[in-house]
Amino acid sequence: MQAVQIHNGFFLVLARGEELIETLTRFCEENEVHWGQFQAIGVIEDVQIGYYDLRTRQYVFREEEGPFEVASMDGNIAEIEEHPLIHVHAVLSHCDETLTTIGGHIKSARVALTLELCLWLVSQPLLRTYDDETGLNLINLQP
Amino acid sequence: MQAVQIHNGFFLVLARGEELIETLTRFCEENEVHWGQFQAIGVIEDVQIGYYDLRTRQYVFREEEGPFEVASMDGNIAEIEEHPLIHVHAVLSHCDETLTTIGGHIKSARVALTLELCLWLVSQPLLRTYDDETGLNLINLQP
Amino acid sequence: MQAVQIHNGFFLVLARGEELIETLTRFCEENEVHWGQFQAIGVIEDVQIGYYDLRTRQYVFREEEGPFEVASMDGNIAEIEEHPLIHVHAVLSHCDETLTTIGGHIKSARVALTLELCLWLVSQPLLRTYDDETGLNLINLQP
Repeated sequence: MQAVQIHNGFFLVLARGEELIETLTRFCEENEVHWGQFQAIGVIEDVQIGYYDLRTRQYVFREEEGPFEVASMDGNIAEIEEHPLIHVHAVLSHCDETLTTIGGHIKSARVALTLELCLWLVSQPLLRTYDDETGLNLINLQP
Repeated sequence: MQAVQIHNGFFLVLARGEELIETLTRFCEENEVHWGQFQAIGVIEDVQIGYYDLRTRQYVFREEEGPFEVASMDGNIAEIEEHPLIHVHAVLSHCDETLTTIGGHIKSARVALTLELCLWLVSQPLLRTYDDETGLNLINLQP
Repeated sequence: MQAVQIHNGFFLVLARGEELIETLTRFCEENEVHWGQFQAIGVIEDVQIGYYDLRTRQYVFREEEGPFEVASMDGNIAEIEEHPLIHVHAVLSHCDETLTTIGGHIKSARVALTLELCLWLVSQPLLRTYDDETGLNLINLQP
């Protein structure tokens, strides 16, 4: 991964083979990025993508080999127990003539060509705490 | 909804049960947010989603119970007759193993789990005025 | 196209009939925008959309008449040989009752109703150089 600090954030370019969540988490830890918002485009593969099932209170993931164009990717960085947690959703389009899409919560993904990610720092704490009603660690601005 | 002011905008967390457009409009009115741009991720349900039909000059909406992962959501805030108007598009993925998506203009949506929304203030007026050619209230930067 | 400079970027409103890449490239050239990140929503038609095939090392594009709601559009501006290069991905939803989507890399698109685009300046150089491994001009932060 290459990174450059910009006026109020960072521009990151992930390289072929790098895992998104792991790479971004390590970057945040090493650069003391606690809270942020990001968008990315690129091409990824070996994706775990899914949704949260409120009835069973569990994430359900599909594994997809891909590759996929990252038609859109939006996420945020918030702290949980003093560690950065990356929350990222994406729309992925099949790299074939159909260009059909799937979307959801990304658990993991490997960069297939490149991933160009613009990260904006958030200047106030975003903290996640456990929420009983949903079973999720939700951003809680008044913890 | 929880809200925190950040360096050049707000980070908002909408709670289960809140209606997106209504909640965001009221927030903008109460906090004098006139012009902005936002992105959000989360899970919503009871959605009115659709498109503008240029031939009939009318929006056509589908009602979808959901829930849906908000795979992407992008919008802006502009003024019309001195009131904030929320314009929002989204890609929604079905909360089932298919993860297939629909997309379009969001008329209304209820938050099913959470909606994490990062709102950036725009420092110059975004005003909507009626456009005869399309039948829409378009952003007009030279009104 | 209408444009207004905002605190750290521009808000652009493209008009019916304008071609996205051409219009945005000319705007960047005329206003010395070298590096940036943007999001847009609106309605487009006459789209060339596709993906990069790593095996053949070529982009494959489909032509689609549309119109389509721009359910999401994210892109960046980087320099190549001192010219701005627009890299843009989008999710497009069919303007019919299905609201089904396709997604990918946008080569060209004509604005059908309006395109509301928020462009944030990136304060450090984003330069593209040719990458032998992929056959693409990738953003290289340490050229």
